[in-house]
Amino acid sequence: MIDHRRLRVALLGAGAVGSQVADLLAKHADELAERAGATLELAGIAVRDLDAPRDVPLPRQLLTTDAETLILGSDIVIELMGGIEPARTHILTALNSGADVVTANKALLATHGTDIFDAADQVGASVYYEAAVAGAIPIIRPLRDSLAGDRVHRIMGIVNGTTNYILDRMDAEGAEMADVLSEAQRLGYAEADPTADVEGYDAAQKAAILASLAFHTTVPLSAVHREGITGVSKGMMDAARHAGYVIKLLAVCERLVGRGDGDEPREAISVRVYPALIRRDHPLASVHGVNNAVFVQAEAAGNLMFYGAGAGGVQTASAVLGDLVSAARRHIAGGAGVGESTRANLPAVDIGQVVTRYQITLELDDRPGVLARVAGILSDGRVSIATLEQTVPDETDVAGSARLVIGTHKALEQDLSETVSRLAADDVVERVVSVLRVEGD
Amino acid sequence: MIDHRRLRVALLGAGAVGSQVADLLAKHADELAERAGATLELAGIAVRDLDAPRDVPLPRQLLTTDAETLILGSDIVIELMGGIEPARTHILTALNSGADVVTANKALLATHGTDIFDAADQVGASVYYEAAVAGAIPIIRPLRDSLAGDRVHRIMGIVNGTTNYILDRMDAEGAEMADVLSEAQRLGYAEADPTADVEGYDAAQKAAILASLAFHTTVPLSAVHREGITGVSKGMMDAARHAGYVIKLLAVCERLVGRGDGDEPREAISVRVYPALIRRDHPLASVHGVNNAVFVQAEAAGNLMFYGAGAGGVQTASAVLGDLVSAARRHIAGGAGVGESTRANLPAVDIGQVVTRYQITLELDDRPGVLARVAGILSDGRVSIATLEQTVPDETDVAGSARLVIGTHKALEQDLSETVSRLAADDVVERVVSVLRVEGD
Repeated sequence: MIDHRRLRVALLGAGAVGSQVADLLAKHADELAERAGATLELAGIAVRDLDAPRDVPLPRQLLTTDAETLILGSDIVIELMGGIEPARTHILTALNSGADVVTANKALLATHGTDIFDAADQVGASVYYEAAVAGAIPIIRPLRDSLAGDRVHRIMGIVNGTTNYILDRMDAEGAEMADVLSEAQRLGYAEADPTADVEGYDAAQKAAILASLAFHTTVPLSAVHREGITGVSKGMMDAARHAGYVIKLLAVCERLVGRGDGDEPREAISVRVYPALIRRDHPLASVHGVNNAVFVQAEAAGNLMFYGAGAGGVQTASAVLGDLVSAARRHIAGGAGVGESTRANLPAVDIGQVVTRYQITLELDDRPGVLARVAGILSDGRVSIATLEQTVPDETDVAGSARLVIGTHKALEQDLSETVSRLAADDVVERVVSVLRVEGD
Repeated sequence: MIDHRRLRVALLGAGAVGSQVADLLAKHADELAERAGATLELAGIAVRDLDAPRDVPLPRQLLTTDAETLILGSDIVIELMGGIEPARTHILTALNSGADVVTANKALLATHGTDIFDAADQVGASVYYEAAVAGAIPIIRPLRDSLAGDRVHRIMGIVNGTTNYILDRMDAEGAEMADVLSEAQRLGYAEADPTADVEGYDAAQKAAILASLAFHTTVPLSAVHREGITGVSKGMMDAARHAGYVIKLLAVCERLVGRGDGDEPREAISVRVYPALIRRDHPLASVHGVNNAVFVQAEAAGNLMFYGAGAGGVQTASAVLGDLVSAARRHIAGGAGVGESTRANLPAVDIGQVVTRYQITLELDDRPGVLARVAGILSDGRVSIATLEQTVPDETDVAGSARLVIGTHKALEQDLSETVSRLAADDVVERVVSVLRVEGD
C-alpha cells in the first residue's frame, strides 16, 4: 500500500514542541509513512544556536542555522519558531516555493493570517495549523471539515491553560490569585512575565483564529474585545461558587442576527475574551487545571465539546504530526489546497452591541428605599432584573452597608455599561463590587 | 474562488437522517458549494415507497424507487438506508462505478467493512462514515487525521444514547430500569424492541469501527466482547453512587503490550462493551441523558474527549454533510482515497486476557472467620484486595447475613472469573450480588 515516494520535511525551531516533533518523526517513521503514503524525511532543523540545550537529543548533522536553504529544498515546512519575524518571512518563502506549511504560530496567524492564506492560495499550497489553537485538541479540522456542511452559531472556549489553572485553583481552594500565580510560575504553568496569559492576549489570538474559521470571515485581532483575569478576586470567586457558578476565562465567538437598514436580516459576529460566570453543571465548568476545551453550538449538530491538553511540547507535537500527515497526503494528491474561506465576510460588532446576561454586585447603604432606587435606575437603563439576592457583607464592605447581587435578563452591553455608571454615581451605592457576564445559559 | 464544477449526489434513504440531509443540502447550497469547491446537485433520492410520510417535505420529482440507475449517474452516493441489504450491494455498485460513498451504516461497516474498504481501494474511491459512530460528534476524522502521527492506547466511549439515558436516569433518580425504559420508549429514546441498544449490540458495532480505525487493524464484530445493561439493578446503581462511582455502558478499545513466545514485546488489542464503574470525577461521568462522548488516550496527545449528540436526524445529518464536503473535495482533487489502514493487523485477545480492576459485592454469613475465608479464596486465585467495605444489608439480603464490597487491584479477567466461581460455590457466601469492572482509573 505504501507509495514509495519520499517527501522532504523542514523543521524550523527546536524548542519544546519542535524537539518533540523531531523525536516522534523518528520514532513513528513507519506508521507516519503508511498514513501519509510517502516516507517523510526530516531534511533538517533550523535553529538559532547549534549548541543550545534541547528537551530531547537531536542528531547534530540535521541542525542548521541556514533556514532559507533548508526551506527551498523541502516539500513541507513545519514552522515552530513562534513570534512574527522571521517566522512570517520563512512561511512566505516556503509557500512561494510551492511547499505546504504546518504551523503552531497563533500570534502570526492572528495578525498576518490573511497574507499567509493569500500566498498559499496564489500557488495552490496549503497551511495547516491544528496546533495553533488548544494544543493537542483537534478543533481546527472539526470546524473546517466535520462542520463544513453545518452552520456554527457560537463557540465558547477555554483556550488558555495558565488562566484556567489559576481560576480553577482559586475556585477549588478559595485561594488568592497572587498565591496561585506564584505557584503556577514555580510549576512552569505560567511565564515569569505572565501578561500574555493573564491579560487574555493569548486567548484573544486563538479566538480570532477560531472565529475566522467558524464564520468564514477574516477576523483581525483588533476586532476581538479582550479582558484579562487580573480583576477576578477571591471574593468574586467565592460569591460565584455560592451562587452555583464558576468563573472561567472564555473566548466567545458568536453569530448575531439583527436587522439592517432596510429591515432585512443582517448577520454580524462578536468575538470577545473575558472572565465570565458559567453554571457549574455546564460541561465547560468541569474543565480543570491546565486543560482546554472548546464548546461549539451548531445549527444541525447541536452542542459539541472538544476537550484535552491545551499545551505541552509532546501534546502539541501530536497535533503537528497529524497536520504533517494531512499535508503529505495533499502534496501527493496535488490539486488546490483547501484554502481559507472568507466568503461570508461578516462585520464584527463592538462589545457595546453584545447582548448577554449579567451579574452585578453592589454595596449599598442599608436603609429603606435603596432597593426601589436601584430597581428604578436599572429599569430606566433598559436592564431587566431576573434575580435579586441580598447577601452577607464581605469583610471589605463598609459597616452599616448591605450587599446586593443582581442577576439581569439579557441586556445590551452598552445599556448595561451606562446603567452601571449611573449606579456607581448614585448616592445609595457605596461601591460597585463586581460586574460579570453570565455565559452558557 | 468557486470552481464551477458540478457534482451529482445520490441520496439513498429518506428517513430521519436522509430527509434532514436533503433539507440541509438545499438550505445551505451556497455554503456547501463554497466549501466543496463545486456545486452539489442532489440528483435524486432513492426510497422504497414514493408516498411514505417524511420528517420534512421533499421535492416529489427527486424521489425514485430505482436506486441503481440513480447510483450509476452519480459522483457521490450517500447511503442512509441502514441494514445490510440492499445497502451493501448499492455501496459496492457505487464504488465500482467510481463514485465516492458517504454512509452512516454502522451495522454494515462492522460486519462487511473489509469488503467495502477493499472495493474502494481497488478503484481509488473513498468511503466516509463520520455519522456511523457517535452521530454529530467528529470522532472518525480526529482519529484518522488529527491523530495520524500519534499512537492511540485506549478509547473509552459512551456510544449508545439509549443506554446512557437509562443509566443516567437510574443514577439521578434512584429509579428502576423497567420504569426508565418505559419512559425512554414513550419519549422516542428507545425502540419498542430495545434489544439492540440494551444488550449492547449497537455499541459493539461502534466499538469495532473505532478499534479498527484507532489500531489500524480489522476488528470483526465477533472479536468484540459484549455485555448489555439488563443486569444493572437499582441496588447496584445506588451502591455505586455511595462509593463515588457511576455505572456507564462503556465501549473500551485497548492496546495491550505483552510478551510473545521468544520474550519479544508483542502487541494485541482488546475490544469490549460492558457496564462498568467509573469515578464520578472522570469526564465521562458527566455525560448525561442521550449524549455520547468518546475519551481517547494517546501517547503524545494525552487525554482527549469528544462530546455531543450521539443520535438524532438533524445532528447526524450534520456529520453526513461534513463527509459530503470532504468527498467532494477529494473527488475534485482526484488521486487515491485515504484508504483504511490495516497495516498493524494486531490480534484481538479474548476477554479472559483482559486486565482491569473489579468491584465484587458479596452477601456472606455473618459469623467469625468468613472474612479470612473470603480473603484466602481471593489470594489463592491471584486476585489482590485493594479496598474492603462491609456495608448495610440490602432489602434483598437474607436476614443474619452481612454484605461485603471488595475492590480489587488489577487482575486478569480469567483469574477473577474463576475466583468468583469459587466464591459462589463456597459455604460462607450466601450470594454473589454483583461483579463490575472498574474503568478509567
